Amino acid sequence: MIKKMFLSTLLLALPMMQMHAQSITVPADAVVAETTIPGNEFPKVDKAHRAYFRIQVPGASKVIVDICNKKYEMQPDGKGGYMAVTDPLVPGFHYYFMEVDGIRFVDPATETFFGCNRQAGGIEIPEGSEGDYYRPQQGAPAGQVRSLYYYAKSSNEWRHAMVYTPAEYENGKKKYPVLYLQHGMGEDETGWSRQGHMQHIMDNLIAKGEAVPMIVVMESGDIKAPFQGGDNRQGHSEYGNSFYPVLLNDLIPYIDSYFRTFADREHRAMAGLSWGGHQTFDVVLNNLDKFAWMGTFSGAIFGLDVKTAYDGIFTRPDEFNKKIHLLFMTCGTEGLDRMINAKRTVEALNAQGIPAQYYEATGLDHEWLTWRRSLKEFIPKLFK
Amino acid sequence: MIKKMFLSTLLLALPMMQMHAQSITVPADAVVAETTIPGNEFPKVDKAHRAYFRIQVPGASKVIVDICNKKYEMQPDGKGGYMAVTDPLVPGFHYYFMEVDGIRFVDPATETFFGCNRQAGGIEIPEGSEGDYYRPQQGAPAGQVRSLYYYAKSSNEWRHAMVYTPAEYENGKKKYPVLYLQHGMGEDETGWSRQGHMQHIMDNLIAKGEAVPMIVVMESGDIKAPFQGGDNRQGHSEYGNSFYPVLLNDLIPYIDSYFRTFADREHRAMAGLSWGGHQTFDVVLNNLDKFAWMGTFSGAIFGLDVKTAYDGIFTRPDEFNKKIHLLFMTCGTEGLDRMINAKRTVEALNAQGIPAQYYEATGLDHEWLTWRRSLKEFIPKLFK
Repeated sequence: MIKKMFLSTLLLALPMMQMHAQSITVPADAVVAETTIPGNEFPKVDKAHRAYFRIQVPGASKVIVDICNKKYEMQPDGKGGYMAVTDPLVPGFHYYFMEVDGIRFVDPATETFFGCNRQAGGIEIPEGSEGDYYRPQQGAPAGQVRSLYYYAKSSNEWRHAMVYTPAEYENGKKKYPVLYLQHGMGEDETGWSRQGHMQHIMDNLIAKGEAVPMIVVMESGDIKAPFQGGDNRQGHSEYGNSFYPVLLNDLIPYIDSYFRTFADREHRAMAGLSWGGHQTFDVVLNNLDKFAWMGTFSGAIFGLDVKTAYDGIFTRPDEFNKKIHLLFMTCGTEGLDRMINAKRTVEALNAQGIPAQYYEATGLDHEWLTWRRSLKEFIPKLFK
Repeated sequence: MIKKMFLSTLLLALPMMQMHAQSITVPADAVVAETTIPGNEFPKVDKAHRAYFRIQVPGASKVIVDICNKKYEMQPDGKGGYMAVTDPLVPGFHYYFMEVDGIRFVDPATETFFGCNRQAGGIEIPEGSEGDYYRPQQGAPAGQVRSLYYYAKSSNEWRHAMVYTPAEYENGKKKYPVLYLQHGMGEDETGWSRQGHMQHIMDNLIAKGEAVPMIVVMESGDIKAPFQGGDNRQGHSEYGNSFYPVLLNDLIPYIDSYFRTFADREHRAMAGLSWGGHQTFDVVLNNLDKFAWMGTFSGAIFGLDVKTAYDGIFTRPDEFNKKIHLLFMTCGTEGLDRMINAKRTVEALNAQGIPAQYYEATGLDHEWLTWRRSLKEFIPKLFK
């Protein structure tokens, strides 16, 4: 009888012990993430770059947090909530979602960011001094990111753009060169300023004298909706190419009429990350009379045949090199970026006599730290 | 036996019939809401201002859409999704949420908007020509809403503000008056431009010559986190008053140093909706040397004792009227706004010899159409 009671007690205690064994301790050095909405205690991040999530979902049976291609099952915390701690994460910005009994949703405690074709959850993982270049610095005068609406006759609609102007633009008289900077598939015109911190990267480079002050224009690029399948090879895909006439015939003229710009090709650049890199190739290489500088960051440059692509321009290096002063390509070394392998494309271009330049974000994947670093490397090479 | 089979068949058929009876037909005139993320078929809105929602949540047992203080149970649509149609809704902007088996979340198909202390779902209900004043018009040159970061010594942190500049500001030399415009409790500095469409309201009023071109500054006001309870009476609440030294000692000087402003009280106004109205009273009436114009839209002005509040300023109408050129108060007539009852406050002020002006958004509640209309009525009265 006593033995039986003991066994029952043991069995009853087991789930609790298990819960206890899996319960999550948040170290004292963990801080509330900067992407957490004020009034919430979680998400938090510790010094080892682990993220801690907590959510209140009474009655749920399985709760998951999905971040950086890994799903973590959340554990009941004994107070009606569920908690999870991640492996150490790469610093910078990551999208994340939660799943309750199979239903995917956004943590109510987080700011949202347009990505994954929707408003997604996001967390900023702080890092030490490396991150200074993408954080505001007191010595660096702050530029602005301007939200503006313009009417595009090409698509017969009001459209929205974000425009960075350097601090000195205000109350000045100088004219500036312009970079058209595109985000990736399933993101929008807010990506570079919100996920990418581009305004701080620009402010800091300009304050140090490492970059020519410039205007940067960001537009949705018509790639907010999911890729519908079909041909994604360079020069074959139709995904997002409705943006091209808008950019060329509406946006560029609008920017040049509204802002103090140098409105010629020598002072106009285009760059983009992932599918925005694909779009950069399409736009610039089909319009060499309009751009003289270009960049792709983890660019989705698939099936590029350097012998035939873009009317064979890469087979005419003299013509290309006279027109394009910089072709800068970057890539991470992990995951999707290992597949993208921009280095291989750069080598193929170099073999054609095109001095494409390469920057590698070592140890990084197809993620925002790769693109923040890429922008920091790219900008100082422009308009010089 | 046959009778029994018939009965069984009938019983089996019942749930399907019920489902069929409740199935939702979307009229042909329904359009995808402008707040719906591209690539999604729903939410839609019809000509009668009914909203149609659809969501895919396999395995759910109870799915609800919660909008405008009403919960609608969604019905299986026979294709693995759930649908609901609402009653006719007031035009303009409304927050909404979904609930699956008791878990509240944001529809993945919608843009999100900071409100309800988080990133919330939102839907724009279009209306006919009345809405022209808050939509971009081709005849009206478009101003900009600028995102900027500034360092606040008062709170020892980087802070974010949104600043509207009129179209003519760019490339001009003129100086402009400044309106500091606050949102409501649980909202943030993006509320007026995203939910409120303030830039279009400003552009249209300025283009028609009805408003003096001005700069409008919007800041988070430290009321993103939920109200913690306590005393919400005018002059007693501490909720959001950490913003006051920031506004007075950091934000105003920053704006005046960075933009071409008239930096004196005669050219400085403050207004706010809901708790932003509360903050407007607190800031302006305690700093009559710094502001000369003020407005509250459905302002959370509770327990105002006109005999004693703000050092008895309302008992000294000559002094007040010499300093404040406009005290404009608006309110809806329904729901929470009926409780707020700004008319009563205006009458109490008028009885003191304070010529407070009143505008009523008839038939409207504590909602964004009330505030869009309020802004449209308020702006033409400023700086004249």
